[in-house]
Amino acid sequence: MTSSGTPAPTVSAARLRRDLEHVAGYGATASGGVSRTSFSEADRQVRAWLVNECEQAGLALRTDGIGNVFIRLEARDAAAGTPPVWAGSHLDSVPEGGRFDGALGSLAALEVVRRLAEEDVPLRRPVEAVIFADEEGSYHHLLGSTAVAHGFAADELARLRGRDGDLLVDALEGMGWDPGAATRTAVRPGDVHAYVELHIEQGSVLESAGAGIGVVTAIVGMGGGHLEFRGRQDHAGTTPMPLRRDALRGAGDLLVRLPEAARSVSETAVATCGILHVEPGGANVVPGLARVQLDFRDSDRTRILELEEAIVAAARDVADRHGLEVSYTRESITDPVPLNPRMQDLVATVAADQGMKTLSLPSGAGHDAQNVAKLAPTGMIFVPSVDGRSHSPAELTTWEDVEAGANVLLATVHALATE
Amino acid sequence: MTSSGTPAPTVSAARLRRDLEHVAGYGATASGGVSRTSFSEADRQVRAWLVNECEQAGLALRTDGIGNVFIRLEARDAAAGTPPVWAGSHLDSVPEGGRFDGALGSLAALEVVRRLAEEDVPLRRPVEAVIFADEEGSYHHLLGSTAVAHGFAADELARLRGRDGDLLVDALEGMGWDPGAATRTAVRPGDVHAYVELHIEQGSVLESAGAGIGVVTAIVGMGGGHLEFRGRQDHAGTTPMPLRRDALRGAGDLLVRLPEAARSVSETAVATCGILHVEPGGANVVPGLARVQLDFRDSDRTRILELEEAIVAAARDVADRHGLEVSYTRESITDPVPLNPRMQDLVATVAADQGMKTLSLPSGAGHDAQNVAKLAPTGMIFVPSVDGRSHSPAELTTWEDVEAGANVLLATVHALATE
Repeated sequence: MTSSGTPAPTVSAARLRRDLEHVAGYGATASGGVSRTSFSEADRQVRAWLVNECEQAGLALRTDGIGNVFIRLEARDAAAGTPPVWAGSHLDSVPEGGRFDGALGSLAALEVVRRLAEEDVPLRRPVEAVIFADEEGSYHHLLGSTAVAHGFAADELARLRGRDGDLLVDALEGMGWDPGAATRTAVRPGDVHAYVELHIEQGSVLESAGAGIGVVTAIVGMGGGHLEFRGRQDHAGTTPMPLRRDALRGAGDLLVRLPEAARSVSETAVATCGILHVEPGGANVVPGLARVQLDFRDSDRTRILELEEAIVAAARDVADRHGLEVSYTRESITDPVPLNPRMQDLVATVAADQGMKTLSLPSGAGHDAQNVAKLAPTGMIFVPSVDGRSHSPAELTTWEDVEAGANVLLATVHALATE
Repeated sequence: MTSSGTPAPTVSAARLRRDLEHVAGYGATASGGVSRTSFSEADRQVRAWLVNECEQAGLALRTDGIGNVFIRLEARDAAAGTPPVWAGSHLDSVPEGGRFDGALGSLAALEVVRRLAEEDVPLRRPVEAVIFADEEGSYHHLLGSTAVAHGFAADELARLRGRDGDLLVDALEGMGWDPGAATRTAVRPGDVHAYVELHIEQGSVLESAGAGIGVVTAIVGMGGGHLEFRGRQDHAGTTPMPLRRDALRGAGDLLVRLPEAARSVSETAVATCGILHVEPGGANVVPGLARVQLDFRDSDRTRILELEEAIVAAARDVADRHGLEVSYTRESITDPVPLNPRMQDLVATVAADQGMKTLSLPSGAGHDAQNVAKLAPTGMIFVPSVDGRSHSPAELTTWEDVEAGANVLLATVHALATE
């Protein structure tokens, strides 16, 4: 992969900023963040905006059965069926998330396609901006790119539920899509030439190093599962403290032990509970059940399994001490994914050509790129996050870094589409 | 207070059992319990059933502006305006509660009125079965009896919200009632001759002592409030464990310390968190906020305040250790309420006359009786709870104890209405 003779155009930084600021209004929260979970009203609105933008730019937009959006630019010089170059990310957010996570890579990919079209750049391969559905996993971790990488069977889809307990198939129908089409989303390896994703780092490594562009070497692996503590539901006024079997107290004890469990496998392993469900949930009832949702990560698969074991062992100890029963359900183990070395080289070369200081680093967060890497050579470009903040209204990347990242994306895509 | 010459009739145990079993069907849960929170669909259904039962029995039923129900039997021999004798309890339950808490005292009071009416017993005072709204505090602890004891101003009512965040005034309107009437519920001291409430013990003192009837000496005092831990919302994959300021982890640490806080003030003090709210509530987001709902009780007012202080001190220590901020909001302090000694004597005498073994004991749970005690001489009759279980589907009182308790209630009400 080498860049062609024709120099790539550059992005319109003003237009990209306008788009990022505009899109931050869909699902904007009082705290200045964004709650744009997949298939919500805000998601519906941003999709409608995107359709309108593409119509105005004369770009063809297609939505697959699970809600992935493809915005396509044909290549003048390509034979029919030439595999396209993909660039993209996602437009859904976590609840109370930030303005850049996903939106940056999605809108920069749109800008790349728009600029290549506007300049009528000669290309040997089609280019598609791809916006994956439900990256943040309201219904399934990396839903849209999983659907692209290996598809879902109808019975798998029928079982998926959102965090409010609603069925995914109902959500898809609510968006006006045919749930049957959600089983026909898989793309064959070889049908995509390469994939590049621009994303904020969501950590503080680039900022600390004073590097403007991160070349991602691998995406960390992660495990998901939940612990269910069961005790005895009792009256909060008449049950003496020593006789209680309080499921929530046991869950609380486990939460305190998570840092030690993570430390036991590596210095960089992390373990998080972001959702804690309590039953019956009355102010004057000793909880009979507490369900602890777990997210645990490491860059090594063996250590992920060791971390899971350490957490479950801690939970068993906690259950013994509090007179509880505990069960663990593994929901998923996602292997760490090394990214294509040639794609890493290309991104590093392009960035250096643009005078950027680069740093190679792994991604602590999961990304759609880890699924697309099963189909095609995949690269990721990171730009710095101020103070490392992410999944928060405080998420921030400077407009200079936004512009630099988008130009590295454009030049990388251009190189791939002209090779 | 002495019993009159005419002997009281006895209840129909079969009819009372039929009513208890039937009412347990409104809001019945898969686990065999009852979820009949106030102003829910199940509450609506039980109220409709009650209206129908009273119509069939020829009894006058009236509902006040907050949803308290009064089923009245006039006294042949009373002058107009003679203060009535009240007997009652509540028909709402906690989520996943049991079949006896509140329902027993309510349906036994209905049975008392029915039997007095059927036997055309000569009375000197009217008798009313009173069913208080929202005893379990979906919107406000002891809502209905608080409304009776001192009423609510319109602006107070407008602020009250349910555990799902819905407004009380909307719930009242949804029931088809005029929210304006909810400010006109207060009853003047002297307008009620006396109040008697039959209730399950919800603890295991009677069972352990082999006593069939408990004579309640006082109702424990309680405090309500919430702690809000604030940390930093961060990405669960990219934020190293040592740098986290995880609000939920802090809340967990506090839960583990509640038993020690309770022990520091007395052997019988209790402190409970039954509701824990987490924000933003995403599986892959380090929680930025955790709100711990607190219920803490003791039989002495000073110790309740000491317990509150001990909990807040523990929370401050936890916040320091986890890099969090914490704030405490007191919602209410309810003083312990001693019950009327003459009413205690009457219940004990009536029960002994019926050959029952009695035991005097305080109530660890709050009851509507503590509010009505501000208006009129008030007594409470306890019957045993199997294994002390309550606020749980496992709540159980034997049919023999149900019948005995209802007969003590009937004879007590009869004595009061004929004196």
